[in-house]
Amino acid sequence: MPNAPLITLTTDFGTADGYVGAMKGVLSARAPSIPLVDIAHDIPPWDRTAAVLALRNAAGRFPEGAVHLLVVDPGVGSKRRGLVALGRGQVHVGADNGILSAVLPADTRWFAIRAEQFEGASPTFHGRDVFAPVAAHLATGRPLDAVAESISDPVRIALPMAGRIGNLIKGEVIHVDRFGNLITNINRRIVDKPERVAVSVNFRPVRLGTTFADAAPGEPIAYWGSGDLLEIGIREGDARARFGDRGLPVEVVPFG
Amino acid sequence: MPNAPLITLTTDFGTADGYVGAMKGVLSARAPSIPLVDIAHDIPPWDRTAAVLALRNAAGRFPEGAVHLLVVDPGVGSKRRGLVALGRGQVHVGADNGILSAVLPADTRWFAIRAEQFEGASPTFHGRDVFAPVAAHLATGRPLDAVAESISDPVRIALPMAGRIGNLIKGEVIHVDRFGNLITNINRRIVDKPERVAVSVNFRPVRLGTTFADAAPGEPIAYWGSGDLLEIGIREGDARARFGDRGLPVEVVPFG
Amino acid sequence: MPNAPLITLTTDFGTADGYVGAMKGVLSARAPSIPLVDIAHDIPPWDRTAAVLALRNAAGRFPEGAVHLLVVDPGVGSKRRGLVALGRGQVHVGADNGILSAVLPADTRWFAIRAEQFEGASPTFHGRDVFAPVAAHLATGRPLDAVAESISDPVRIALPMAGRIGNLIKGEVIHVDRFGNLITNINRRIVDKPERVAVSVNFRPVRLGTTFADAAPGEPIAYWGSGDLLEIGIREGDARARFGDRGLPVEVVPFG
Repeated sequence: MPNAPLITLTTDFGTADGYVGAMKGVLSARAPSIPLVDIAHDIPPWDRTAAVLALRNAAGRFPEGAVHLLVVDPGVGSKRRGLVALGRGQVHVGADNGILSAVLPADTRWFAIRAEQFEGASPTFHGRDVFAPVAAHLATGRPLDAVAESISDPVRIALPMAGRIGNLIKGEVIHVDRFGNLITNINRRIVDKPERVAVSVNFRPVRLGTTFADAAPGEPIAYWGSGDLLEIGIREGDARARFGDRGLPVEVVPFG
Repeated sequence: MPNAPLITLTTDFGTADGYVGAMKGVLSARAPSIPLVDIAHDIPPWDRTAAVLALRNAAGRFPEGAVHLLVVDPGVGSKRRGLVALGRGQVHVGADNGILSAVLPADTRWFAIRAEQFEGASPTFHGRDVFAPVAAHLATGRPLDAVAESISDPVRIALPMAGRIGNLIKGEVIHVDRFGNLITNINRRIVDKPERVAVSVNFRPVRLGTTFADAAPGEPIAYWGSGDLLEIGIREGDARARFGDRGLPVEVVPFG
Repeated sequence: MPNAPLITLTTDFGTADGYVGAMKGVLSARAPSIPLVDIAHDIPPWDRTAAVLALRNAAGRFPEGAVHLLVVDPGVGSKRRGLVALGRGQVHVGADNGILSAVLPADTRWFAIRAEQFEGASPTFHGRDVFAPVAAHLATGRPLDAVAESISDPVRIALPMAGRIGNLIKGEVIHVDRFGNLITNINRRIVDKPERVAVSVNFRPVRLGTTFADAAPGEPIAYWGSGDLLEIGIREGDARARFGDRGLPVEVVPFG
């Protein structure tokens, strides 16, 4: 396997503490000359849904062979396994906590990081002592077998799924982005004619447009977002402040 | 045109959502081996003045041929154009909303991104689907003509300008930085002897020094900042908490 | 001296203002093709303890020859010196304010940046005008003599040290990380059997484990952290909200 074109980093570490820096140190010492690219470090602490959405937005856009290092890991130090996942022509390394399995397609191949890799690791920082070394190992074209073994049962998490009652699609807000836009779990692919639906947020109707630019400043609007999920936004405004936060019910009814 | 030495990114996306990561994915897939350098991602949402100041501080310091990708874009999805700007020996890509025209010199050459580049783009994420691809195209030395056409009328925005009444220069605070320092719109170049002026903030006199280190801890001081603008700071303190925020009047009177 | 493998950046500048971008511009213009790696930019303003801990976590993990640029500098513009420090096979550049001397080992060699390097520099931005140019100079293998001269008296700061009264080790919380974990100044190396101690926080006993994963959700636990310091955390919770902030007394008593 040739060297990876780059290694990406996605964490909930923030950038005030040197934890991200410690991982970058390990990566640059063990995989010299492979570029490091930050995807996101301000994932809210332990927030698996936010991590799923960030990776879903970003990871697949990178070139073939990219190694993605993901450290959002509420179970660090527990007996949970570490994973290597080969999917979409890319390599993913992180904890076995359901984030990667929620992001990657069904034909992904899964591997558990071998117990030896955990020997001597700090029980509070597997990102530095296990996942970064494994990512560097794989990014420099060394054999997967040496660090992980095939498995078929990665942890699966149930993200809240949109349900259906007859014509009615019942979903909810699962994330709020930096701009206050509400991201729902309603994917445009589950609707026949995404442009012909009525949308309600917390049981109040909201107009469907193609983007918040279709709305007057201050007017709320629903639109199919850049990640194919239904979103609710307010042009140059904060939809969370208007409507509420995660868990808010959102419904879609096709018409015509 | 040879490959660019690097591509910089400046956005108001924050680093919690994967939006920056999605753009980096597109750039690294389409412009492999060209380094990506983050300038700033915590520009406050839609804050054009902050974006102007950040670029003004940073962009011109990069080497010739650098490609600067700017995505602070309150009008995303509307009919506003996309721009390529050739100025100071560098390439700039972003929305036609006045930020780039406020940063770049008068001899900049302007180009509008062709309508074809917008076909199929997500109406809420031109950064990923239009500006990043155009930046990668140009960074890899491919022809500008293929993606943009010459224009002469980029949008201009009027940043609040310092005025003059006789000897009196009337300005205001236009930005507050991370340290609470107040950045004004009074440029040292409009004063004959910048070291010989009396400064008032909100109509109260403030001593002029060369840096906050000239002041005692807790004492406010005015100084000509690293970007040539008059600033007001408090040594190891927060001038915003003491004086106020954007819009605060600041006056300068030459003496002697 | 060959080119450095990379230049790291650690600052308290945040990423909203373009100050980090200005330094990266200078570095990429003067040290082309040397990768820039962000360690941390959200060090709280002027917080030397946080800077010491971030560097302590990260810097030594990078490869030999790395150049570390540190700009956390409450005294910018004052007469304080600039430093180059050669330690652990790496190069460090920053202000002479005690941060570097608190991080680096006793056999580090110290150099003061020559006065000429400060000529014409903005008195509020030595990071851009002095430290970045010196870092680029050294990263590109040019002679140290040209920019700095040997000294033996870098500023030393006294970080709060854990004390000892007979068997009792009296320390305190010196930092709180992003997750609300309390980092103390009690190093596991000063205890004979780190696994056999009783810990109290604010004079209340807290169980010692190996990681917060040993605790039930909501239960506080003390553990030897990834940087060898005693920490107190709450599994998926915020120990600061429960116990308090910097300065909180923490005591350790060996048993058995």
